[in-house]
Amino acid sequence: MQPIGRRRWAIAEGHISSRSSFLEEALVSHETACILNARDHQAHVDITLFFTDREPVGPYRVTIAPRRTLHLRFNNLSEPAAVPRDTDFSSVFEADVPIIVQHARLDSRHAEISPLSTTAYAEA
Amino acid sequence: MQPIGRRRWAIAEGHISSRSSFLEEALVSHETACILNARDHQAHVDITLFFTDREPVGPYRVTIAPRRTLHLRFNNLSEPAAVPRDTDFSSVFEADVPIIVQHARLDSRHAEISPLSTTAYAEA
Amino acid sequence: MQPIGRRRWAIAEGHISSRSSFLEEALVSHETACILNARDHQAHVDITLFFTDREPVGPYRVTIAPRRTLHLRFNNLSEPAAVPRDTDFSSVFEADVPIIVQHARLDSRHAEISPLSTTAYAEA
Amino acid sequence: MQPIGRRRWAIAEGHISSRSSFLEEALVSHETACILNARDHQAHVDITLFFTDREPVGPYRVTIAPRRTLHLRFNNLSEPAAVPRDTDFSSVFEADVPIIVQHARLDSRHAEISPLSTTAYAEA
Repeated sequence: MQPIGRRRWAIAEGHISSRSSFLEEALVSHETACILNARDHQAHVDITLFFTDREPVGPYRVTIAPRRTLHLRFNNLSEPAAVPRDTDFSSVFEADVPIIVQHARLDSRHAEISPLSTTAYAEA
Repeated sequence: MQPIGRRRWAIAEGHISSRSSFLEEALVSHETACILNARDHQAHVDITLFFTDREPVGPYRVTIAPRRTLHLRFNNLSEPAAVPRDTDFSSVFEADVPIIVQHARLDSRHAEISPLSTTAYAEA
Repeated sequence: MQPIGRRRWAIAEGHISSRSSFLEEALVSHETACILNARDHQAHVDITLFFTDREPVGPYRVTIAPRRTLHLRFNNLSEPAAVPRDTDFSSVFEADVPIIVQHARLDSRHAEISPLSTTAYAEA
Repeated sequence: MQPIGRRRWAIAEGHISSRSSFLEEALVSHETACILNARDHQAHVDITLFFTDREPVGPYRVTIAPRRTLHLRFNNLSEPAAVPRDTDFSSVFEADVPIIVQHARLDSRHAEISPLSTTAYAEA
């Protein structure tokens, strides 16, 4: 397979609701970054979070093995700090090898589950 | 962090329903532009709204501090004019520094909440 | 405003359900192409529809005045032929001036309304 | 019509729930890649699936006739192996002619149907 991807990505939208209608983990309200490393080298990804009224937090450091995908829940990030709930944020991804990033959210504040998804913004 | 973003963006879809099933602000039907300014300089963004059968309105002027994100609700824009409800529109964003723009909507006309999101169209 | 947009766009997804839970036009299941002409010249757009097992149909001819947006429902297209319901299709847009195209769908087969949206694929 | 499309695409998100609230095929939870071949030559597309903790599977080989669209359900792929349910995956598409790929999902784990869609990541 030919190489595919880019090293720098951004997701301008981000917001994790503290409320969920379900206890099952798959249905808890969450923000996810689906990250594909289709290359034959490990990918080291630095994620920085931006907020409305405070300085950015990061980098969150993630490693993805060669030829693997990681569907990373922002809910589970803890170092250097947990992601605050009910708070608007954006995220920037910087990798040492080309990757592909897609943004997904599931909102289950109400009894229905409301998913959304979009390919993130990429830069060479 | 290396610079990331583009100066000019467009969202072809836009429509704010006058109806909502909820009084809570987070669940009122809304259109949002999530704007990330990951740079170390303030971003001045001019937004122009386009309609089906009248001249464009704008610019709406927004300022985003360095290293901040703004999840801007079109519902709250008031100068030079409020955004009409139940009316199709499009929007163009012109910034003096590179930014990232993502379009999001929450539709709560009915009892369920229906969110959507997409990375906007970018031009250098 | 500086020129913005591209002349050629594609939406690979398309499917209009013949079923809707509502009679109100805004809530009838529909496929929409939101087309922004931010330029000072009229835009002539030729739309071709592609199917799974028959030859393409088109062009559907649409004109958008300068500085106007058109949220075009595929449901309403009639010349050269109505868009078949419950049938997969794709669409290609070719314009004589740069435009911006966003794909939107509302699915109301069931009692809830399920919208989605994505910026279309653009080519110079 | 001028040629349109790219040869290589990626969808970082992928997940087929084993649960559905409906028996009707259109409403069973599914992941779809809508693939448009707007060209006058047959398109041969090789699809590779990537997982979180095992080696990639593929290629899945798909042929699309000239001037046709294929709304391909990952649920139906069987060679070289069925796509596992309740498992995160990503996909890469490599074609011998330019195509357009859009990602769509329908999630019907609960009584409501929750669709999403996004233009995939493209590379020349």
